[in-house]
Amino acid sequence: MSMQEWIERKRDGGTLAREEIEALVAGLVRGEIPDYQTAAFLMAVYLRGMDEAETTALTSAMLRSGAALDLSAIAGAKVDKHSTGGVGDKVSLVLAPAVAACGGSVPMISGRSLGHSGGTLDKLESIPGFRVGLTLDELCAQVADLGAVFGAATSDLAPADRLLYRLRDATTTVASVPLITSSILAKKAAEGIDGLVLDVKTGSGAFMASPRAARELARSLVSTAERLGVRAVALITDMSQPLGAAIGNSVEVLEAIETLRGKGPRDLVELVTRLGAEMLLLAGLVPDLRVGRRRIARCLADGSAFRRFHSIVARQGGDVAAIENVGLLPRADLHTLIESPVSGYVRSIDCRALGAAACALGAGRRRMEDVIDHGVGLMCMRKVGDAVEAGEPLLLVLYNDAARCAAVRPALEAAYVIGAERPRARPLVRARLAGATCRERS
Amino acid sequence: MSMQEWIERKRDGGTLAREEIEALVAGLVRGEIPDYQTAAFLMAVYLRGMDEAETTALTSAMLRSGAALDLSAIAGAKVDKHSTGGVGDKVSLVLAPAVAACGGSVPMISGRSLGHSGGTLDKLESIPGFRVGLTLDELCAQVADLGAVFGAATSDLAPADRLLYRLRDATTTVASVPLITSSILAKKAAEGIDGLVLDVKTGSGAFMASPRAARELARSLVSTAERLGVRAVALITDMSQPLGAAIGNSVEVLEAIETLRGKGPRDLVELVTRLGAEMLLLAGLVPDLRVGRRRIARCLADGSAFRRFHSIVARQGGDVAAIENVGLLPRADLHTLIESPVSGYVRSIDCRALGAAACALGAGRRRMEDVIDHGVGLMCMRKVGDAVEAGEPLLLVLYNDAARCAAVRPALEAAYVIGAERPRARPLVRARLAGATCRERS
Repeated sequence: MSMQEWIERKRDGGTLAREEIEALVAGLVRGEIPDYQTAAFLMAVYLRGMDEAETTALTSAMLRSGAALDLSAIAGAKVDKHSTGGVGDKVSLVLAPAVAACGGSVPMISGRSLGHSGGTLDKLESIPGFRVGLTLDELCAQVADLGAVFGAATSDLAPADRLLYRLRDATTTVASVPLITSSILAKKAAEGIDGLVLDVKTGSGAFMASPRAARELARSLVSTAERLGVRAVALITDMSQPLGAAIGNSVEVLEAIETLRGKGPRDLVELVTRLGAEMLLLAGLVPDLRVGRRRIARCLADGSAFRRFHSIVARQGGDVAAIENVGLLPRADLHTLIESPVSGYVRSIDCRALGAAACALGAGRRRMEDVIDHGVGLMCMRKVGDAVEAGEPLLLVLYNDAARCAAVRPALEAAYVIGAERPRARPLVRARLAGATCRERS
Repeated sequence: MSMQEWIERKRDGGTLAREEIEALVAGLVRGEIPDYQTAAFLMAVYLRGMDEAETTALTSAMLRSGAALDLSAIAGAKVDKHSTGGVGDKVSLVLAPAVAACGGSVPMISGRSLGHSGGTLDKLESIPGFRVGLTLDELCAQVADLGAVFGAATSDLAPADRLLYRLRDATTTVASVPLITSSILAKKAAEGIDGLVLDVKTGSGAFMASPRAARELARSLVSTAERLGVRAVALITDMSQPLGAAIGNSVEVLEAIETLRGKGPRDLVELVTRLGAEMLLLAGLVPDLRVGRRRIARCLADGSAFRRFHSIVARQGGDVAAIENVGLLPRADLHTLIESPVSGYVRSIDCRALGAAACALGAGRRRMEDVIDHGVGLMCMRKVGDAVEAGEPLLLVLYNDAARCAAVRPALEAAYVIGAERPRARPLVRARLAGATCRERS
């Protein structure tokens, strides 16, 4: 154990050998490294970076610091998707059942909301009774039976990640490509998957707002995943405005259900179709992306994706009546409209501000101990490029606490920029980065 | 309190305002900032640096985090010297009584040995009964009565420095110019001095080995001291070989006593004279450095410096018999010689290796809890430039533990480089940097 030497080497821009990174992670898990040394190491990594080999070694050591799902008894390739986090991103709720309905196996271990970004587990818990705290055995069994599961990370999955993550916010070392890469992939690789699609967000609602940073992260994620034996593709997608209309928890479940029934908003359907096609291709279930997209579109149209979601909700203890009749989902008591002060076109939306406002209304957490109000949220009545007349609504605000609503109103009013000219349409998927093992076939 | 913001700003190379640094130090002293945030901050400062204004604000806030000596009742300027640490550096033991004998007031608060470098307090404790743990009142009274005191930092002097310093070794953030500057000057300024001479070491035995790093540190120390209202001069001095012959504790006291009696080794006498002249000039006791040097030389020759040392030892509880008859000082039971394998000239000495070997024999500490063996050490029988015949001694090793002696012997044998040609003599004082307030007069 010579944590000082490792900090010093990284401080000076040197590289750590695989064995050193393994010893570091082992020391961390055994509680032998004091937090202040870990913190200094994280800052040195933030400022000096890590090369591909170091990032892979760190990810691998974090993965092997705990248990992993054993899905080897399930035939065929197991695939999953990870998003770097955005606003109104309910893709997972639609994607997992859709891919499962097409024959894929999706062990989807998800996270909770933090900061301006929502969390899949919080959204699902809008459905009364829905249980996300499954054991490793329950997770495996459900993937075998239904092709998909939504679960929380158990405490024995990649424990080293929790030990590092807990310090990263307080030490402002979150936005580091090697640290993000290892944190994401250690947990995803612990799912025992063969293929992974990465949805790397860029734009005002993304954690890595600049296209350059998003591309760097995408490249690191894909190459590190492939070095760990997980075939990977990344799509860099636009998060300069919310995905779909709903931002919150029950409102997002409602929009996900509409999408699963073939009536989703255009951008959400497009992203589910693109990501789903990549997953089917990675799983070897389709010969190319075109067929994959068609297959996903069909399962949304023919009700098979919704039926799979229904089975998953039932299996995980959720009240299926609430997804058959969405009027039974929790809904805020009060609502108000934010109206456009002028006529014109929506030029841009401050996506992060909408996410932060939804969080402030109670839809998310500022600290892990905050309690979620599942019924509150926002509905975007206009998206970028839409025409709006003065006095027409831009946003519907669903709230339970008038003071909180009043507090966020100025930020909501400032979030929309209205101009005389319609802005140029931007593609939702801005780039695709395929790993070495995926390049020929896609 | 927003430690995260301050870490983030420093991480990104920004600067902190004086009020922010004050709030940070106040939070630190109140125990409100967890160690892991402090550690991340230290690493960000190490890698991003601090500008002059930030360094001054940090030093000032650390200074004001605790108590300070109030020497205002003593007439005339109070002056001190700080060395960045070397091997065989017993200058303080000679300098404080010499300057006091010339009419100066020297409240010398010193440190202990750590790593390869010795500590003034440990050396003085070779004198049976010598007490360094004085109260602030005792320190002040002794300066008033005798013109000099040797004391340990009390726990209420610059407590913020202790809180930071304790994390710096473990987080490898020691060798940072703004952190060294603030740590040194917060404690020195707390002595209530008007002028400070800085002995910044360069060469193989120094903490900042390269001349460039030494010059950068000297510049930072001088300009920060002056911004705090302490007139300052730095001498950049050679530490590529030990100062004098003795390395250890009682052996260094013995050599200091010889020097105080006018029989010191040439390099030690030169450095005491140069530093002492600067202190007398800063105190306004001499018109120029030439007169200052003559005054110091005279007090060493006429016994007045030794008599002052005698009074100081008596006042601090030390056994004066041991300084009158140095045979009473602790001395190791065993000794051995390291002999030159070839004839030639001493080309160079690995000064740090000698310091580390003396420490390993028991003269220093590797950890703060180690116990010092005051009688062990090294005597350099040859210095750089000296001629030596094969079989003649280079070093005398004084030890009590044969195993420790055997362990350091290979390093000692490798520390001297002997060559056919006499090396070019290097000046002991390599540069002088005077603060703005000192420039005209020197």
